[in-house]
Amino acid sequence: MFSFRLTSSPAGPLAPRTGVITTARGEIQTPAFMPVGTLATVKALMPDEVATAGAEILLVNAYHLFLRPGHQLIERMGGVHRFMGWEGPILSDSGGFQVFSLSRIRKVEEAGVTFRSHIDGSEHSYSPEVAMEVQRALGVDIAMPLDHVVPGDAPLEATRDAAERTLRWYERSRRAAGDLATFAIVQGSTHPELRRWHARELAAMDAPGYSIGGLSVGESKEAMLAMLEIVNTELPVARPRYLMGVGSPEDLVSGIARGVDMFDCVLPTRLGRNGSLFTDAGRANIKNSRYREDPSPIDAACDCLACTRFGMAYMHHLFRNDELLGYRLASIHNIRYLVRLTERCGDAIAAGTFDAFANGFLAGYQPVDEAVRSEQKGKWLKQSGYEDESSETAVST
Amino acid sequence: MFSFRLTSSPAGPLAPRTGVITTARGEIQTPAFMPVGTLATVKALMPDEVATAGAEILLVNAYHLFLRPGHQLIERMGGVHRFMGWEGPILSDSGGFQVFSLSRIRKVEEAGVTFRSHIDGSEHSYSPEVAMEVQRALGVDIAMPLDHVVPGDAPLEATRDAAERTLRWYERSRRAAGDLATFAIVQGSTHPELRRWHARELAAMDAPGYSIGGLSVGESKEAMLAMLEIVNTELPVARPRYLMGVGSPEDLVSGIARGVDMFDCVLPTRLGRNGSLFTDAGRANIKNSRYREDPSPIDAACDCLACTRFGMAYMHHLFRNDELLGYRLASIHNIRYLVRLTERCGDAIAAGTFDAFANGFLAGYQPVDEAVRSEQKGKWLKQSGYEDESSETAVST
Repeated sequence: MFSFRLTSSPAGPLAPRTGVITTARGEIQTPAFMPVGTLATVKALMPDEVATAGAEILLVNAYHLFLRPGHQLIERMGGVHRFMGWEGPILSDSGGFQVFSLSRIRKVEEAGVTFRSHIDGSEHSYSPEVAMEVQRALGVDIAMPLDHVVPGDAPLEATRDAAERTLRWYERSRRAAGDLATFAIVQGSTHPELRRWHARELAAMDAPGYSIGGLSVGESKEAMLAMLEIVNTELPVARPRYLMGVGSPEDLVSGIARGVDMFDCVLPTRLGRNGSLFTDAGRANIKNSRYREDPSPIDAACDCLACTRFGMAYMHHLFRNDELLGYRLASIHNIRYLVRLTERCGDAIAAGTFDAFANGFLAGYQPVDEAVRSEQKGKWLKQSGYEDESSETAVST
Repeated sequence: MFSFRLTSSPAGPLAPRTGVITTARGEIQTPAFMPVGTLATVKALMPDEVATAGAEILLVNAYHLFLRPGHQLIERMGGVHRFMGWEGPILSDSGGFQVFSLSRIRKVEEAGVTFRSHIDGSEHSYSPEVAMEVQRALGVDIAMPLDHVVPGDAPLEATRDAAERTLRWYERSRRAAGDLATFAIVQGSTHPELRRWHARELAAMDAPGYSIGGLSVGESKEAMLAMLEIVNTELPVARPRYLMGVGSPEDLVSGIARGVDMFDCVLPTRLGRNGSLFTDAGRANIKNSRYREDPSPIDAACDCLACTRFGMAYMHHLFRNDELLGYRLASIHNIRYLVRLTERCGDAIAAGTFDAFANGFLAGYQPVDEAVRSEQKGKWLKQSGYEDESSETAVST
């Protein structure tokens, strides 16, 4: 069971919009931010806390759960919802991105991929059919097909081949999906014509929803937004659009402004564990000594658990002493901040004041330095240097 | 405001008893286990979670908070309760133990101690008066005086000198305490005559409560219990007795059996972070592969957040992947286990069945008995609709 209904009348394919996704496990108001629970846990948080932060859906990763503890084990334990104690909708990423960035690829063929695990070097085969089998075993509510992912700076020819293969793989994925709602993933890196063609081909296949992959991986903001506009011009207005792996406050607002409905990102939890806290003025580093004696909350307008109960001075104390509670509170604040930002956008859309809201927000938000952002998000370009959230065992800056 | 009232009629100074401590911030039923929040945080947990685990009082450490962030900063932030978001009673340890074990001692004189911080090597003076000033600034409900702590295997002469100084320091501490309830600390290591003499001297000073220090520091269980019996024979029956730093399940029951009212220990949180979980049959190591496919809770009789919502298989998965949520759930379970154990003891005392309860408990508590757990698991599985799959699982593990 999956449906999407617009609750506003967008002015065109590139206009901001509100909607409702309905799944068997509940509704999701869009625009929506989806916290990431790679290994069937949103790092450091209880399901309750994620729900209290306002999230209506969360994300798990099929590649990671396929490797550990194994999708069949989770199926025997009653499915991923029961396993992790989250009763609401769950979307799973197929792990295409992870297969092609984290693992050591042995062979890519039309049939599928053979790779060595990034954990123990064991060899595995992964195909569109296996990816769907994994996601069906997990019992998720929305699935992603396996896509062929190439680095953002790959030659045009290689990018085109991968996009074509992704099309063929989507057809196989849909056949293997049964009644599991499976989005199509638009690829094409930063090549305008390729993006347009890929979006158009997938649009013709009438998927229940569309994911936009291969962005926010090191390209400039301008390039990302240009691709977004090309893709959303082609995609059907009546289907949800999900911008994968994107979740900085400014990108959320810019994406919603261009008609995106769904986002996911490890940023709020990863930054949270590093003591970096979202505010409307930009990111605050809680370890900074200016917060040592500041009893005020991170953000007086925020209704999260951290802001309503603790002052900056206490958060500073926790981070200065590597106390785990600090990671929790910062993660909760950052998730709530992003979810609330989507709520604020939705309210502004409903009120017809979105442009003013977005312009005001973007003018006030001090974006992260482009170089820093590239470094953080483009690590996958260097295969060996890439660090995925789930492979972190310690908090690193 | 501090008072203690027995709610049972103990058969003598060494008999188990129940009581109620009243402070300005609430009542504490005894026997009580007090979770430790050294740096004004019970590691990994929110105050709510500690309260939900049944704890009515928690402990902070004056030495640690004196060094960071500083007691005066906490006072300016509104006191330690407000700082850390815990509204119930708080007991602070003076840090005598930490000064003499963690820091680098420079000088011990009658006036006080000069030491170098274990964190940054900075030099500090600490005295009975400073320890009280720190604890008053924190705004705690029950304070400990600075005591002169020597290693458990120190020569008799040095142990006696330290005990005598601890007596003199307690007199100074009481003068500096104002209206802050300040317990006396009985020392004397494992020297029976010294323990008896020290307890008797302090008993004559009519403290609001008595702490028993210098035990559970490496001596045998027999020696610890022998000292406990000597001390409790001397202490006034109508005052609460607090066995410092003790908190294994078997020591809790053995202590309560000898008339102890209060305990504290880092064990539940420290073991929890290592994946070691208390059960009536002993400690279970969640990382053991036998739990990989076990959907049953740690302890079907436990009402903690972890046991009511998650299975061993999920906990195992979290620990195998160093997920912070695992540390939280294990800490919550272990604290709830110890608090519930004091509640079970209290109920048995009230029902006049404590001896049977204690004997039964101590006979059953041992390094994990897998047969017992298997039986519990089988029962749980049947009730929860896992029957067929899990019996396969049981066979294969």
